[in-house]
Amino acid sequence: MTIERWERTTEVPLLVAALLFLAAYAVPILQPGLGRGERWMWMLVTLATWVVFLVDYVVRLHLAPDSWAYARKNLLDVLVLLLPLLRPLKLVRTLRTFSFLHGRQRLGLEGRAMVYAGSATVLLGLTASLAVLSVERGAHGSNIATFGDAVWWACVTVTGTGYGDLFPVTARGRAIGIGLMFGGLGLLGVVTASFASWFMTRFKRGDEG
Amino acid sequence: MTIERWERTTEVPLLVAALLFLAAYAVPILQPGLGRGERWMWMLVTLATWVVFLVDYVVRLHLAPDSWAYARKNLLDVLVLLLPLLRPLKLVRTLRTFSFLHGRQRLGLEGRAMVYAGSATVLLGLTASLAVLSVERGAHGSNIATFGDAVWWACVTVTGTGYGDLFPVTARGRAIGIGLMFGGLGLLGVVTASFASWFMTRFKRGDEG
Amino acid sequence: MTIERWERTTEVPLLVAALLFLAAYAVPILQPGLGRGERWMWMLVTLATWVVFLVDYVVRLHLAPDSWAYARKNLLDVLVLLLPLLRPLKLVRTLRTFSFLHGRQRLGLEGRAMVYAGSATVLLGLTASLAVLSVERGAHGSNIATFGDAVWWACVTVTGTGYGDLFPVTARGRAIGIGLMFGGLGLLGVVTASFASWFMTRFKRGDEG
Amino acid sequence: MTIERWERTTEVPLLVAALLFLAAYAVPILQPGLGRGERWMWMLVTLATWVVFLVDYVVRLHLAPDSWAYARKNLLDVLVLLLPLLRPLKLVRTLRTFSFLHGRQRLGLEGRAMVYAGSATVLLGLTASLAVLSVERGAHGSNIATFGDAVWWACVTVTGTGYGDLFPVTARGRAIGIGLMFGGLGLLGVVTASFASWFMTRFKRGDEG
Repeated sequence: MTIERWERTTEVPLLVAALLFLAAYAVPILQPGLGRGERWMWMLVTLATWVVFLVDYVVRLHLAPDSWAYARKNLLDVLVLLLPLLRPLKLVRTLRTFSFLHGRQRLGLEGRAMVYAGSATVLLGLTASLAVLSVERGAHGSNIATFGDAVWWACVTVTGTGYGDLFPVTARGRAIGIGLMFGGLGLLGVVTASFASWFMTRFKRGDEG
Repeated sequence: MTIERWERTTEVPLLVAALLFLAAYAVPILQPGLGRGERWMWMLVTLATWVVFLVDYVVRLHLAPDSWAYARKNLLDVLVLLLPLLRPLKLVRTLRTFSFLHGRQRLGLEGRAMVYAGSATVLLGLTASLAVLSVERGAHGSNIATFGDAVWWACVTVTGTGYGDLFPVTARGRAIGIGLMFGGLGLLGVVTASFASWFMTRFKRGDEG
Repeated sequence: MTIERWERTTEVPLLVAALLFLAAYAVPILQPGLGRGERWMWMLVTLATWVVFLVDYVVRLHLAPDSWAYARKNLLDVLVLLLPLLRPLKLVRTLRTFSFLHGRQRLGLEGRAMVYAGSATVLLGLTASLAVLSVERGAHGSNIATFGDAVWWACVTVTGTGYGDLFPVTARGRAIGIGLMFGGLGLLGVVTASFASWFMTRFKRGDEG
Repeated sequence: MTIERWERTTEVPLLVAALLFLAAYAVPILQPGLGRGERWMWMLVTLATWVVFLVDYVVRLHLAPDSWAYARKNLLDVLVLLLPLLRPLKLVRTLRTFSFLHGRQRLGLEGRAMVYAGSATVLLGLTASLAVLSVERGAHGSNIATFGDAVWWACVTVTGTGYGDLFPVTARGRAIGIGLMFGGLGLLGVVTASFASWFMTRFKRGDEG
């Protein structure tokens, strides 16, 4: 079996696994009053999806003509296996595959770059909202108490606006904030540059037509 | 009748309609003590202008050689019909038509892109100011009380400065703020890129001449 | 006499006049306890430099082969005559002429664009600092009390950082702030774009050499 | 002996010296309760590394075929000798040499520009954190008390987010903040532009392959 065929076959199962992983991360944070049994269930889901991603990675290494070259070219995969918080990026990747199959006609290169970097920004913001909420809620002197607060804080942070009505006060919360600021600069830089380029192209075309 | 002729004929009436719609949105917010009769009048104006835009859209669909292709190419029009808050963008479009007719000689491509994206930013900021004022004024713990406050907040937000002296506290106010932050990043990104490009071109020319 | 010769001859006197105008604007703000006589003296300096700029403009219009074309091409000059606060931009212009004469060998196009847009940013920030200080000092609820505060506020505003420790509270102070935010976005956009371009060029060259 | 051979030979010793200088700057700030002997030791280390850099500079001037041309081309070196706080930039330079020797295959031009400008940002942020901590700690009304606070403040400042939960209140602290804001705009502008360019290139390639 070729690696291309494997990737095509596992596309939908991996999308489901990524969504389940995200759910297993989100639900216990959003519902802090969860029972012991349900907590265990979501931990099992986390573990199961992690095993699924591990198996997928090992199989792809085996199927690749040159395993070392493949591993070096796909360093993000290893990162995602080691750092669970980066897992949602798998979701973006699957989304990218989808848009590659179906969206080629509708969207130009800039449009797809905007969708890809924009989706990565949304996932980054969502993950950071959940992470900061689980860390800051209950901390002494914290002002991020609800999921709504966390989403608002993430948007204010990722765009670099920084009102200062809400901000993390714990070391881990600040680390999440630093990741979000720099990640936002990079990803929204791609979105803005693509948007400006797309805008000028459309503007020029409307000028001629 | 061709679609081009329709668009040329309806240009001025649609400009008036867009201005009326904006006025019908702004006046009840800026004058909260309005009588029942006046409130009704402005609601009728809103409805009437909406019907005008709907009729214009349907006529254009009929006049287009391929209605489906036209609808797909002008998705913004549908969005504007469904979400009244985006309506002022019609105004920018008309403004664009005007600048296309008269301004071709004076402004280069970058100049017109700056005027277009800059006008869209002003309209976005103005709409967001009005919207946030109507939502936040009177909310518990809110600090945006007057139209002056709202305009100052919108400028501080759209440029990403974010002092934090004023900020929305309600869910709807925060949603407006999020739209303004991301919209400002995109539109002001176009303005800044166009300005930098125009500046460098003029600078280079001044260097040679 | 040709217009080029006039511009070359008046270069140094106009530079002195621009510096005097800036001083006449700055001194009464920085020293609020000035005597009546000194206040009058600085107002006379303001008036005299304004007359100098007006005479220079009229002479240039007369010397130009096509006065109307010249006026249309130099709209900034009229703006500067009407709005005294924009006057310091004359200073930048003179500075630009100087760097054109002497700096051609040392700095590339990007370097000069950085110097020009950077100087305009410094002048804009300095003018805004003085203006905001004269407006906010003594206003009810204001937190900008000294020139040091005003400079710190201007830097925090022009870069879009916006801590919110200091911010204008009067309508005129806010208007100055809005001008500074948008002006900073434009001018620092040019500086940043030029710096990135210059950096990549030098980086590429170091790569080859 | 040629200048190239000297630079290759002194690479590792200068890297060690730069690290020692950074340590000699950091340790007395991070450990304010240091004994008199230890303070003296770190001051000696500072002096010794400074002499090392001075000797290196003089030797390079002697080895260069045209000393004046070399001095004019390497103005950063003089700056670094006069202003100790800029010294860590030497570290980045050595790092650049390393990545030139070993990393040419792995990273493209944009990748290396990102690593270089990113490292400079990290060093700038680290130096500013240490400097602001030594200045603000103990100042009246200051809110930056620990190294963790200082790093968080530096990240919030360099990205232009500016929550305003922490900010310098002394004149020297504000000067450091101004340097960090403008330096961050320039360096992170390079990082963002390189990242966007790299992203679009990879995106285009993935599109074709």
